[in-house]
Amino acid sequence: MGRIICAGLGPGAPDLMSRRAERAVRGASHVAYFRKKGRKGQARQIVEGMIDEGAIELAMEYPVTTEIPFDSPEYITQLARFYDDWAARLTELARSHDVVVLCEGDPFFYGSFMHLYTRLRGTVEIEVIPGITGMTGCWTATGTPITWGDDVLTVLMGTMPEDEMVTRMAASDALVVMKTGRNLPKVKRALARAGRLDEAWLVERGTMKGERIVRLCETGEADCPYFAIVLVHGQGRRPELPARPLVEVSL
Amino acid sequence: MGRIICAGLGPGAPDLMSRRAERAVRGASHVAYFRKKGRKGQARQIVEGMIDEGAIELAMEYPVTTEIPFDSPEYITQLARFYDDWAARLTELARSHDVVVLCEGDPFFYGSFMHLYTRLRGTVEIEVIPGITGMTGCWTATGTPITWGDDVLTVLMGTMPEDEMVTRMAASDALVVMKTGRNLPKVKRALARAGRLDEAWLVERGTMKGERIVRLCETGEADCPYFAIVLVHGQGRRPELPARPLVEVSL
Ligand SMILES: C[S@@+](CC[C@H](N)C(=O)[O-])C[C@H]1O[C@@H](n2cnc3c(N)ncnc32)[C@H](O)[C@@H]1O
Ligand SMILES: C[S@@+](CC[C@H](N)C(=O)[O-])C[C@H]1O[C@@H](n2cnc3c(N)ncnc32)[C@H](O)[C@@H]1O
Repeated sequence: MGRIICAGLGPGAPDLMSRRAERAVRGASHVAYFRKKGRKGQARQIVEGMIDEGAIELAMEYPVTTEIPFDSPEYITQLARFYDDWAARLTELARSHDVVVLCEGDPFFYGSFMHLYTRLRGTVEIEVIPGITGMTGCWTATGTPITWGDDVLTVLMGTMPEDEMVTRMAASDALVVMKTGRNLPKVKRALARAGRLDEAWLVERGTMKGERIVRLCETGEADCPYFAIVLVHGQGRRPELPARPLVEVSL
Repeated sequence: MGRIICAGLGPGAPDLMSRRAERAVRGASHVAYFRKKGRKGQARQIVEGMIDEGAIELAMEYPVTTEIPFDSPEYITQLARFYDDWAARLTELARSHDVVVLCEGDPFFYGSFMHLYTRLRGTVEIEVIPGITGMTGCWTATGTPITWGDDVLTVLMGTMPEDEMVTRMAASDALVVMKTGRNLPKVKRALARAGRLDEAWLVERGTMKGERIVRLCETGEADCPYFAIVLVHGQGRRPELPARPLVEVSL
């Protein structure tokens, strides 16, 4: 019986991978990773040159989505079937081999692997190797600590409703907004409404080639890559200072 | 002119360090780290066996605190002087050598190094190497993803006022509470008042020797080590589901 090993690869720079993840990747006979059709895949890119020549690669390509919207029930059904299929294939493979699944950042932090994990758990032995999250790579890139003292840190997805975003942005000391991409205009509006736009930074492709760090208020909204995070740094709240209010802000 | 390099060492297990951090540590002629008087120091412990025999070690020992409370103005002044002194010594050393400062987890995430960093910035060249945060090591240890879909993650310090803790605990999907230690009884009470105690886990010494993972409601409150984190996992909020309310909960 083999195992499934999910290796967290860190934010992008190959030398930010852990030794434990690197050992798993270099020793792998079977390597699986998610990617969009026609792309190389970011996780695969990180391990370029590290995979054994004889290793078998399994590119798990997300179903194509040009016809139907991402959030339609139809797409969600397609996606569930996609995860079902791959869970079945990996279980089958793991009868005779170890399979290493590559994952950007940390697997248990908003990672796609979790959709396989919930399906595989109980049927096959699984090891998860933690990784440096994308946000950690991004705040390090800004050269300013993200949190100190009693700061509250809130992590939000750019996909959530704007009004809720505003309330939460106003209430937190430090902020991380992920899944910005096409949601960037909404994220920017929400930050402005919460009175926090001037403090916000946009980090594109943190620690990767093409890394870009800009004040959010100075960016045009035109295009934002998939690997992009918005950050507001905490100021190091002291226990004796008042908290930001948690009640609804005027909208 | 030398540089200050702060190496994030990850949550505890030495093989969860990045290759970049490992290279810095192994190549260092001067290694500095914080520790409590009479202790080896957790950061120093992680790199055991990796430091060059001829390297000079600088143990930065926190001022002793048996006489005056942690949060007294007097102690805060003592601590500021301690950071001032070490910032001056490291600046002096960095005129002729690279100095590697060891840091548990990630340096910019509630790390002590930040107090040196704000003092050193501008006077000397500094490189910060990100690390896997303690919380990432801890949620991986629980074997359950911390966040999915549109989950909101809130990171809180056990040192904050109880009432504010309750409100924030009730409002977030996923939760991380750090600096538990002697604050554990307060954290437990706050979770109970927020209706989240049954979902909470306590992870002591995540990824280190002596790691312990227990349901928080099943623990006696007696003693909790310094390296301990309380977690509540997100359930994978779908965009169409209602958010947890952000208004004050009844206290
Ligand atoms: C599905 S989540 C996966 C997160 C990943 N498991 C982690 O631990 O960072 C994808 C989002 O992560 C963020 N992200 C991850 N790595 C990044 C990087 N190096 N630079 C900028 N954003 C990144 C982006 O916001 C992107 O939309
Ligand atoms: C001053 S903060 C430093 C955080 C560190 N810079 C990081 O990135 O994790 C210290 C707190 O981190 C948490 N912590 C860090 N590593 C941990 C581990 N391996 N297991 C449990 N708790 C940990 C504890 O709650 C502790 O009180």
